[in-house]
Amino acid sequence: MTKKVTILGAGLVGSLLSIFLAKKGYKVTTYESRPDYRKSTTVGGRSINLALSHRGLKALNAVGLDDEIKSRCIPMPGRMIHALDGQLDFHAYGKEGEYINSISRSGLNELLLDEAEKAGVEFYFNHKCINVDYKHTTAQFEFEDRKVEIEADFILGADGAYSAMRSSMMRSERFNYEQHYITAGYKELHIPPNAEGDFAIDPNALHIWPRGKYMLIALPNLDKSFTVTLFLPFEGEKSFENLQTEKDVSAFFEADFGDSVSLMPNLTQDFFTNPTSGLVTIRCYPWVKENCALLGDAAHAIVPFYGQGMNAGFEDCHVLSRLIDTHGELNQSVLQEYQELRKPDAEAVADLALYNFIEMRDKVADPKFILQKKIEKKLNELFPEKWLPLYSMVTFSDLRYSEALAIGKKQQEIMDKVMEYPGIEIAWQNLDFASIVNQL
Amino acid sequence: MTKKVTILGAGLVGSLLSIFLAKKGYKVTTYESRPDYRKSTTVGGRSINLALSHRGLKALNAVGLDDEIKSRCIPMPGRMIHALDGQLDFHAYGKEGEYINSISRSGLNELLLDEAEKAGVEFYFNHKCINVDYKHTTAQFEFEDRKVEIEADFILGADGAYSAMRSSMMRSERFNYEQHYITAGYKELHIPPNAEGDFAIDPNALHIWPRGKYMLIALPNLDKSFTVTLFLPFEGEKSFENLQTEKDVSAFFEADFGDSVSLMPNLTQDFFTNPTSGLVTIRCYPWVKENCALLGDAAHAIVPFYGQGMNAGFEDCHVLSRLIDTHGELNQSVLQEYQELRKPDAEAVADLALYNFIEMRDKVADPKFILQKKIEKKLNELFPEKWLPLYSMVTFSDLRYSEALAIGKKQQEIMDKVMEYPGIEIAWQNLDFASIVNQL
Repeated sequence: MTKKVTILGAGLVGSLLSIFLAKKGYKVTTYESRPDYRKSTTVGGRSINLALSHRGLKALNAVGLDDEIKSRCIPMPGRMIHALDGQLDFHAYGKEGEYINSISRSGLNELLLDEAEKAGVEFYFNHKCINVDYKHTTAQFEFEDRKVEIEADFILGADGAYSAMRSSMMRSERFNYEQHYITAGYKELHIPPNAEGDFAIDPNALHIWPRGKYMLIALPNLDKSFTVTLFLPFEGEKSFENLQTEKDVSAFFEADFGDSVSLMPNLTQDFFTNPTSGLVTIRCYPWVKENCALLGDAAHAIVPFYGQGMNAGFEDCHVLSRLIDTHGELNQSVLQEYQELRKPDAEAVADLALYNFIEMRDKVADPKFILQKKIEKKLNELFPEKWLPLYSMVTFSDLRYSEALAIGKKQQEIMDKVMEYPGIEIAWQNLDFASIVNQL
Repeated sequence: MTKKVTILGAGLVGSLLSIFLAKKGYKVTTYESRPDYRKSTTVGGRSINLALSHRGLKALNAVGLDDEIKSRCIPMPGRMIHALDGQLDFHAYGKEGEYINSISRSGLNELLLDEAEKAGVEFYFNHKCINVDYKHTTAQFEFEDRKVEIEADFILGADGAYSAMRSSMMRSERFNYEQHYITAGYKELHIPPNAEGDFAIDPNALHIWPRGKYMLIALPNLDKSFTVTLFLPFEGEKSFENLQTEKDVSAFFEADFGDSVSLMPNLTQDFFTNPTSGLVTIRCYPWVKENCALLGDAAHAIVPFYGQGMNAGFEDCHVLSRLIDTHGELNQSVLQEYQELRKPDAEAVADLALYNFIEMRDKVADPKFILQKKIEKKLNELFPEKWLPLYSMVTFSDLRYSEALAIGKKQQEIMDKVMEYPGIEIAWQNLDFASIVNQL
């Protein structure tokens, strides 16, 4: 008999998961608390665009979608660093032909919903999950003031950072859980197309204005605008708390992000209209109870600084899909293997994402850091099999996050010593690169 | 005008806090979800007896209660270690005249409730808090199928590890929270008085059967019985999971706690009647939002292995009380100071409690550990002002937990080196004790 799988969440991860399982012949029904994205105009408190990279593309490829996706992507082969005086400096992320992709969250979500329906998935929107009973594999929803109860063979929670399934699991015994907010928050702003209707700045880069404890970034959209995000501490000297008036905001942007001001005609209006949001890391375990499991942000919400949140969630689906193929069916031991395999990788990507805030807001402007990246690039050119920079392992490979992090730490220890060589700034080309690589 | 303080929780910490504030002239109203302990027979899933030590007694002293309490205490000046062959070994906790106290949770709670009523506190039992609105200092309760809403100048949450106030705070932005369960759980058992109606084993000791990854402990009660607690992993070779039948339980106790079996005539019955519970550490921050604050387990639930849960909660009340005295009144800046002062100490005692499980279940049976304790005792005798062993700093002093932990770490580093001296077992009396102390 066809097994019934209920999926919670029709966001990016829930939709892709639905496709994976429907294509394997499961009867998939997916519940979402919000209205159908395809019929509503607001996305609701989520970032407007995202960076799609190798892991996410590989998962989309597995359901035959990567070509469809690529046409909606804007390639970003590197970072464009905006100095305080407006000077620009481009740093490639990887090798020639390697890039991350700016993609619209809503556009991608709509495509996935359409594909899921084509694959036979049934969607129920405006169904707010209020409880999951993992012992009986049932769930209760609120829908238009009524209560709806469902029963399934499996319930998979891809219902995001504020997951209802996770809340239900938390009420059971012995569920480990942590939510931790960093001291900075974020606010989205907007660079519209210029007077000629074209991109106002180079679209083939992720723009960063690194300023130490805070930063501004911008990612291109297909409509030739940019979505801009300010990351700034909530409290302290330079903080959201100290930006109370239009004058405060203008003065702050003039002083710290001077070259961005003329690009954002609606800066102060956007600033006071758009919400200021917190940035949370959520860690929990177990992810699996009986025939219920958590995937994506529901299992491991991370800060956005490595551009890996969606990629990690898509990789969860892909890992689970491959385990089902290996074992021949979805069952409890597949779910068990999924969580044991995936938990260390979720921990690693959470740590990587936290670390990358420091890199983006501060280190990318540091000449010593830039030199280190240059040396690592050289190491990679000379020994492509032996030395892959951490950013490339995370973004352009599907090495397990936990392995990437472990290798990255080892690389950093080696590079710390290399960077101490007297006169390294001038003499770096004469380094004994082979002996450096051999320390790995 | 008299300020109104609402306290959530009429457990140990809530009752003591109520007394502190009522004695300062606040109009105190205290809400408790359970029935009045004084009229009900069950305590409901909490440990039966507790170890009261210096910090707790000092707080009780501050409200004039310590003499009243002392008559209800059974002094435990040390640990009685039960070896596998039944041999007994007594280790004093501190100096002559220093001891911790076994006290009945329900007896102490009843006394505190009576004292609070005498001080003018109004109690509402069977009121289950469902929400605290810290922006308006209001709270909602369920009482006999009705909803009751209250308003106060301050609301203080002393409502335990599953705090309703903390749940409300968690729904607000930027609340850091962690709950972590250790892999062991616990189950309470019972040693009744012997045939002569007397204590079956020495009442003036905390009995421990240390067995590496698990242990049994026993604390005396005034009725000449002992409350026994088995701490054991949930899963694995020796685990709750593997104790499914009466035969399993008998065989396990015969093999591992042989001398305890004849003391517990109802062992197997108790084992299958009494619940198996998890052991959680809860960390969160902030503890204060506007005029609302968390105290005791609601702010920092810890594992029971240092006997400090109640003592730390009582010390919270005492610290807050002294801050109110210093500033002349309870206000937001007092609450702010309370949380900033107290958070590092809560973190420290949480870590100390986790560490002490390893000490109790494993190290107390290790000759090297026993020798180290002997050397530290000698250091303390020779230099009482300079070297106070960690256990004594935590249990017999009111040094801040965070300082005790920091000093204890430094002491351990020094002792690690001392313990490596060749022939230390024989030659320890000839150590240069002054030079050891001077390394601190």
